[in-house]
Amino acid sequence: MTATPSSPPHRAVVEHLVRQTVYARLGKALPRPAAAPHPLVVNISARHCHLTQAAVDSLFGKGHQLQVHKWLYQEGQFAAKETVTLIGPRSRVISNLRILGPCRTLNQVELAYTDGIALGFDLPLRASGNIQGTPGGMLMGPEGFFEMPDGIIRALRHVHMHPTDADYYGVKAGQNMQLKIGGPCALALEAMLVRVDPAFKLEVHIDTDEGNGCNLQPETPCELVK
Amino acid sequence: MTATPSSPPHRAVVEHLVRQTVYARLGKALPRPAAAPHPLVVNISARHCHLTQAAVDSLFGKGHQLQVHKWLYQEGQFAAKETVTLIGPRSRVISNLRILGPCRTLNQVELAYTDGIALGFDLPLRASGNIQGTPGGMLMGPEGFFEMPDGIIRALRHVHMHPTDADYYGVKAGQNMQLKIGGPCALALEAMLVRVDPAFKLEVHIDTDEGNGCNLQPETPCELVK
Repeated sequence: MTATPSSPPHRAVVEHLVRQTVYARLGKALPRPAAAPHPLVVNISARHCHLTQAAVDSLFGKGHQLQVHKWLYQEGQFAAKETVTLIGPRSRVISNLRILGPCRTLNQVELAYTDGIALGFDLPLRASGNIQGTPGGMLMGPEGFFEMPDGIIRALRHVHMHPTDADYYGVKAGQNMQLKIGGPCALALEAMLVRVDPAFKLEVHIDTDEGNGCNLQPETPCELVK
Repeated sequence: MTATPSSPPHRAVVEHLVRQTVYARLGKALPRPAAAPHPLVVNISARHCHLTQAAVDSLFGKGHQLQVHKWLYQEGQFAAKETVTLIGPRSRVISNLRILGPCRTLNQVELAYTDGIALGFDLPLRASGNIQGTPGGMLMGPEGFFEMPDGIIRALRHVHMHPTDADYYGVKAGQNMQLKIGGPCALALEAMLVRVDPAFKLEVHIDTDEGNGCNLQPETPCELVK
């Protein structure tokens, strides 16, 4: 249920179990959200990058292994202790850009549009991994530089789903859903891309612009709608 | 139709007139948005402040008059040439904070939540002018400092309406509407506060988090819904 033995279960998972147990004890039928196979977790992805081992070698020294700063909700994924400096196409800089591990087969920087404005260029909106024709930049680490010919994007908002979640919501990979976020500055995000994999746990990823636009807090009610 | 003789008519106003003229020439009935008394203008308010003349005196020198940098869509309102530095309650700083003129009877700083996170404190969500119990800060100008005991807020998203607009949409001052914003990362903003005044032109104000969350561009379709 947790990413590693060392990380505590997510608040949403505990609440989901408690809710199911309470309804069972009372002998009552579960309301629809509590009957879902998994709780809905919505997390804000601050700007970050994914790197190849070759890029890590250039930036942190040959054979350097990324260190775990914090385990993420998706199994085996982590925020690394290591950060880099991004030098954008107009020579403006973003410092302390967090690396997410483990290493991947491509280099990709995911920014919010607010970051793009700070860097002074138009970010393309892309699904993760679809980086052809996107702008590149230079990464700077303590042991060297690494040039990215492309890979700077704003990631399409998306929801990770286990196949049992996709069945429950009646959607397939590649379809779009809507996420309703409540509270005093509520909003509804359209075009939430569905990604399905048996390794995924149900989790929505939105960026800092979207999360701050509605002041998303741990207690803010969220609903995923087909 | 324009804020001053020197500012050109807003793109939305020109388009609205062209659309109405074309339909009239073709002898066709106007579709609903084109039949509205005024075009819907949606503008992003970047962080800014409103100041009293006393505050301007302290920051820029006794009797200093704010200079017009750019006229805004609302009649008589302008972005001033003058900017100030804001020192937040945890001594972090935002530079080049734009002043909007003319001077008002109260001092108020309007930030996005992303700015609040950069400053390191929780911004209260308030309607403009309702600043009792909100955090304050220090403003720094070329000629001195000005201490604000309160007034740092995130402004409630809102729509300025002429009474004819309120009639057309069937709403009253103080009610909430929804703004649907289209495009590849579409969203719908709830709790859009209606403000009505005969001096107002129809205009929605959203902040940079909201505007960047959906990558609002001049050509992005927007719809105001009761």
